Amino acid sequence: MISGAGAAQPSFAARLEAAVQAKKSCLVVGLDPVVERLPGELLGRARQGTGSAGWTAHAAVAVGLFLREVLRVTAPHAVAAKANLAFFERLGAAGWDCLRRVCEEAKDLGLLVIADAKRGDVGSTAEAYAEAFLGDIPDTLGPVTDAVTLNPYLGSDNLKPFLRWARPRGKGVFVLVRTSNPSAAEIQELPVDRKPLFQHVAAKVRCWSEELDATLLAGDELSSVGAVVGALTPLQSQIVRAELPRAFLLVPGYGAQGGTAEDVAPCFLAGGRGVIVNASRSVLYAYEKQDGPWLQAVEGAAVRAKQELEAVRWKSRQSTVDSRQ
Amino acid sequence: MISGAGAAQPSFAARLEAAVQAKKSCLVVGLDPVVERLPGELLGRARQGTGSAGWTAHAAVAVGLFLREVLRVTAPHAVAAKANLAFFERLGAAGWDCLRRVCEEAKDLGLLVIADAKRGDVGSTAEAYAEAFLGDIPDTLGPVTDAVTLNPYLGSDNLKPFLRWARPRGKGVFVLVRTSNPSAAEIQELPVDRKPLFQHVAAKVRCWSEELDATLLAGDELSSVGAVVGALTPLQSQIVRAELPRAFLLVPGYGAQGGTAEDVAPCFLAGGRGVIVNASRSVLYAYEKQDGPWLQAVEGAAVRAKQELEAVRWKSRQSTVDSRQ
Repeated sequence: MISGAGAAQPSFAARLEAAVQAKKSCLVVGLDPVVERLPGELLGRARQGTGSAGWTAHAAVAVGLFLREVLRVTAPHAVAAKANLAFFERLGAAGWDCLRRVCEEAKDLGLLVIADAKRGDVGSTAEAYAEAFLGDIPDTLGPVTDAVTLNPYLGSDNLKPFLRWARPRGKGVFVLVRTSNPSAAEIQELPVDRKPLFQHVAAKVRCWSEELDATLLAGDELSSVGAVVGALTPLQSQIVRAELPRAFLLVPGYGAQGGTAEDVAPCFLAGGRGVIVNASRSVLYAYEKQDGPWLQAVEGAAVRAKQELEAVRWKSRQSTVDSRQ
Repeated sequence: MISGAGAAQPSFAARLEAAVQAKKSCLVVGLDPVVERLPGELLGRARQGTGSAGWTAHAAVAVGLFLREVLRVTAPHAVAAKANLAFFERLGAAGWDCLRRVCEEAKDLGLLVIADAKRGDVGSTAEAYAEAFLGDIPDTLGPVTDAVTLNPYLGSDNLKPFLRWARPRGKGVFVLVRTSNPSAAEIQELPVDRKPLFQHVAAKVRCWSEELDATLLAGDELSSVGAVVGALTPLQSQIVRAELPRAFLLVPGYGAQGGTAEDVAPCFLAGGRGVIVNASRSVLYAYEKQDGPWLQAVEGAAVRAKQELEAVRWKSRQSTVDSRQ
């Protein structure tokens, strides 16, 4: 265990809020690199040795080159990059090495870095994950990651170690509450005391946040224990927001998954606060749907997403209703 | 996407059952390598350069040497090795490289390999995870892994891609149902229609299994869609077993976490079938509690665990009650 990080520094929520204000954007660029969808000029390299030993190394280099360019053109329009670990783990150790480098580049470009890992485990295992994602060990994700996504099924045992690592380092977590996939309701909407399960999970997240993260909740500040709520189900978003009036919400499902900027509206707090919205495939692979240089398509998609979301955020900024409790 | 694997081959459940019969053991050796707890002779190497760049590579080499020896002496007494990804991810890309090599060695020693990854995600992301853990890409975990643990919170969307990769390759999954950690009840025992949530999750796992895995359920065979149920709560285990009469149960919590062999009894099907029991720290770090060569302590702990569990399994083998429905 390597102890680290200094005294009081701005919380994750405060840093995120400041970035949203400064950049006038709540866009998160999702890094879901599918090797087979890379632009033509990188695809040859990515396909070198497909199916044989060593392919993952080639593919990881191509992915790294791709995402470096993507980050360079999208960073001015976004507040954070969200690395989706599955697409890196598909390339094994080479993918994990690429992941760390890509996150480093995102950080160097001034983006906050979210590891979309959805981890959830018990006691000493959660502790190891927490250090892996939020710790100080050189050559690992820890030093370059600002927040990590977590699964709630194992309860607060999973959350506690992450918060122990997060708090002194100004880092945070996002707990899955209501996801954006078609089968989400199978478990998340099971009725508990006439309310859907996800609403109870939201209430638990609030309890855990108040109990474990009290120092971060002083004054007007938002909690660094955030929640993930999909863009495809605005009614559910409204319920989650009511349960979590002080949480940052990370909203996936916008763009390629079918969610619109308007669908995100119920998530915003008064003043347009407390929300970041992820767009992955609709930005990353924008060149598949239009002619011209691929990077220009990517940048254009990021700009459009930012503007669309800003329009909705602007409306909620003008709202006089303050839903904080 | 690399397609692969031939025609009909034994299912994961059939292979696991055969291993239990052949080895007269239901023990799974859990690989939770904590660098700081390695035996003295490896600790110097493991600590080389602590806190500086390059440390993870040194530590991963030491972990690899440790686990190679552990696997060599425990393989005759166990049916599977369960790699706990957190402890490898703490070492970044070097850890992932070590993980693959260790799993390869476990496979070469005739053990089935379970990646304890507890992944749970949506659509294309779950697809990428499924290929990462059960696919055919050289240099990744896919070719050396027989099964992976999954989180149920996102519903069947998460399960489907894993089963698509698992089925033609004779591989399987274990879905978390009731975990062994103190805070498990916070979510898993929320009451849904007067039954705890985990019971509904068990019922869902059964539905998913019957729907998605029908070909594996012919005749007397167990399902390759297994479940994870902790050893610390025998009453809960009984409930899960009643809901899942055809599933292999992977039982953690035995040993260092406090569960006894007797606690596992309610999990067995008639004939002593359908259960594997994980022991991680109680085997891996057995030398911390006794003098003498460390490897001898590890082997002794594995033998004792196997015998303890066999005694309980033997009792249930003699049971005439067949709880299958």
